[in-house]
Amino acid sequence: MPVITGMDVLDVRFPTSRELDGSDAMNPDPDYSAAYVVLHADEGPDGYGFAFTIGRGNDVQAAAIRALEFHVVGRSVPATAAELAALSRDLVGDSQLRWLGPEKGVAHMAIGAVVNAAWDLAARRADKPVWRFLADMTPEEIVGLIDFRYLSDAITPDEAYQILANAQDGKARRMETVLADGYRAYTTSPGWLGYSDDKLVRLSKQAVADGFDMIKLKVGGNLDDDIRRLRLARAAVGDEVRIAVDANQRWDTATAVEWMRALAPFGPYWIEEPTSPDDVLAHQAIARQIAPIKVATGEHVQNRVVFKQLLQAEAISVLQIDACRVGGVNENVAILLLAAKFGVPVCPHAGGVGLCELVRHLSMFDYVSVSGTQTDRAIEWVDHLHEHFADPAIVRGGRYLAPTRPGFSARMYDATLRRYRFPDGPEWTGAGS
Amino acid sequence: MPVITGMDVLDVRFPTSRELDGSDAMNPDPDYSAAYVVLHADEGPDGYGFAFTIGRGNDVQAAAIRALEFHVVGRSVPATAAELAALSRDLVGDSQLRWLGPEKGVAHMAIGAVVNAAWDLAARRADKPVWRFLADMTPEEIVGLIDFRYLSDAITPDEAYQILANAQDGKARRMETVLADGYRAYTTSPGWLGYSDDKLVRLSKQAVADGFDMIKLKVGGNLDDDIRRLRLARAAVGDEVRIAVDANQRWDTATAVEWMRALAPFGPYWIEEPTSPDDVLAHQAIARQIAPIKVATGEHVQNRVVFKQLLQAEAISVLQIDACRVGGVNENVAILLLAAKFGVPVCPHAGGVGLCELVRHLSMFDYVSVSGTQTDRAIEWVDHLHEHFADPAIVRGGRYLAPTRPGFSARMYDATLRRYRFPDGPEWTGAGS
Repeated sequence: MPVITGMDVLDVRFPTSRELDGSDAMNPDPDYSAAYVVLHADEGPDGYGFAFTIGRGNDVQAAAIRALEFHVVGRSVPATAAELAALSRDLVGDSQLRWLGPEKGVAHMAIGAVVNAAWDLAARRADKPVWRFLADMTPEEIVGLIDFRYLSDAITPDEAYQILANAQDGKARRMETVLADGYRAYTTSPGWLGYSDDKLVRLSKQAVADGFDMIKLKVGGNLDDDIRRLRLARAAVGDEVRIAVDANQRWDTATAVEWMRALAPFGPYWIEEPTSPDDVLAHQAIARQIAPIKVATGEHVQNRVVFKQLLQAEAISVLQIDACRVGGVNENVAILLLAAKFGVPVCPHAGGVGLCELVRHLSMFDYVSVSGTQTDRAIEWVDHLHEHFADPAIVRGGRYLAPTRPGFSARMYDATLRRYRFPDGPEWTGAGS
Repeated sequence: MPVITGMDVLDVRFPTSRELDGSDAMNPDPDYSAAYVVLHADEGPDGYGFAFTIGRGNDVQAAAIRALEFHVVGRSVPATAAELAALSRDLVGDSQLRWLGPEKGVAHMAIGAVVNAAWDLAARRADKPVWRFLADMTPEEIVGLIDFRYLSDAITPDEAYQILANAQDGKARRMETVLADGYRAYTTSPGWLGYSDDKLVRLSKQAVADGFDMIKLKVGGNLDDDIRRLRLARAAVGDEVRIAVDANQRWDTATAVEWMRALAPFGPYWIEEPTSPDDVLAHQAIARQIAPIKVATGEHVQNRVVFKQLLQAEAISVLQIDACRVGGVNENVAILLLAAKFGVPVCPHAGGVGLCELVRHLSMFDYVSVSGTQTDRAIEWVDHLHEHFADPAIVRGGRYLAPTRPGFSARMYDATLRRYRFPDGPEWTGAGS
């Protein structure tokens, strides 16, 4: 049996704040970063994973990943669903480390990075992309991946099994479809808050020309600015293209309702992160008052327990999983099943560093094996930093292509790791510029 | 103006797992630990604070505190409410670090440690214990301490001001009362899950003899054991003493209801942490089904937003603040005001390392300046590790004495820091045993 013989953790940061890429009402100057983990095996391929952060604190995130090393090194390389479930259970269940969350924040994102690296490793050994590796598992194996603690009032193992069993019908056909046609994307590239009106209009038109039927704009800084920007964007893309808006947690309930009523004439499709990602009841109140505009959230939703409540309370009508915020593939499979149970479409958060690369696997698995549909689903697309990945996300004609190379697409090029390592890589010391 | 010239962070761990002190259904073998912070000033006293953890990961917690150093070092020593509010705002508002939470887990506990150390420093300079330093502030100053973001649907600054203004009446008398009679305590010392029945009975009787009118037992491992232990404890203490039980997040909703119905004949006063601390809706469902047994939680509640929802949903009837889980004194003042607004008594979580030392200040401030009552309130008391603190919590006749020495009582003895420093102190290397 091959064994995991070592774990490396690297602090990698990209100076994205220099161009205001990624600027929004809450995050004016992010330096997109990754606390990157490599699991070394004594034979066969290594496994790669990461947590995404936006700069300062990436070293803390790396330290949290290192704290998991003793659970991983010396362990057999996981190959089966049962072994991947056991690894996830051991990490989440560490009673001393659990105090640092539980199941939230830095400690939980660290678990996500390691669990995702283990999936990368297992899928590489199986010579399959993760979406396909998952889709080839039986419903029983998939149910066995999930920690149902705190979920049983919303979904039971039997109900999860039934959703998966029902989706067996047509699975082979959907697999062909996703290989041929990929998965719908929407783009946030036009809408960063730091961009000029001209750039906004130009990029919005470009998005439509490139085949996108949905774009997203950042809002929440200044209402007059938002009205002007949304009007410009609507004029640029026409009435048939969906425009989502994203407040990045800036508002309290009353402000969210007031602001969205002011933007309503321009037909926003959803409001994303109107308020605190912890506030289920506020999302519920906002959703009730601004319908039919949809409420979306998820990139900062800490775990399956909060997603469960957002669904139970009918507080969201779009659920945005993130590949790196929760405890990895296992917990995201649980969240996909919760969304299917409640009939809420999943439109993943992506962008950042490598989030597009990872999360497309989860949406494609959802389509093939869980929800069985792409209706009202789309994966976020932000076109930067892909050049650093060995198996980059590719979008053509407004659709993500299905990845076909083995693994979870998390591997960065060695040259990138050398150049952007913080604080001693040449990008940060100035030696290379 | 005196300036903060440096910040030290130490990883301090106590080998409590050797005696099963602190063992419960979720935490079988904690090593109570502190990520301890010292703020050095160029003149006058230093300030002390810490985050509490239970062992592994205390180094990650220490790293998260170090990540805040640049916000603190070089800053004027805070002396006023406005300066303490500004420090808290700067730490919580760091847009890059915010990604690591937001406002939860390791990153937020780190903010709490630094904010609490700043309060220690400010109160030492004012030559007052923190509870008195707070009580001497005006209602306007106290309202100014609080970040009302995400709170306005439950409490406005005006409403907070009104609560504080109303409590001015009788404040001087309550200050005398707390100095003369202290504050009611309850004890968890008899009830750790790892203790034998004999030890449970002996310590329960001892608690009553020592003047306590309330004890707490850990439950949630095995129902038959819990029934036997609760029956023994009830027989030991009689019908007049309240017995709370604490499941430390072990259950889902249905199990919690079933289990508590089985324990109901022995008259449990509250069930603490029946399920995930993130699950507002599950606490609400449990509370409705097991009334009149009360539901309590808080030691793992990550921030004011979740406390707010627990109150809005009538999911708890006892609110348990923790001095070190949230963002420090400022956020705990917000939570005390929320509890007062909703008329829910605050019974702080304590124990651990130094939590008794700190949180008594907050309860005494609550009594003097916020709620104005001790009815159905009590601070948890666990009698261990106090010998390491320069201004230890003292309980006599079942009541916490009011601290009178300047500061927040967070300072540990230098000998303790040397001995228990991890991994190189003699307690861990074996050199001193």
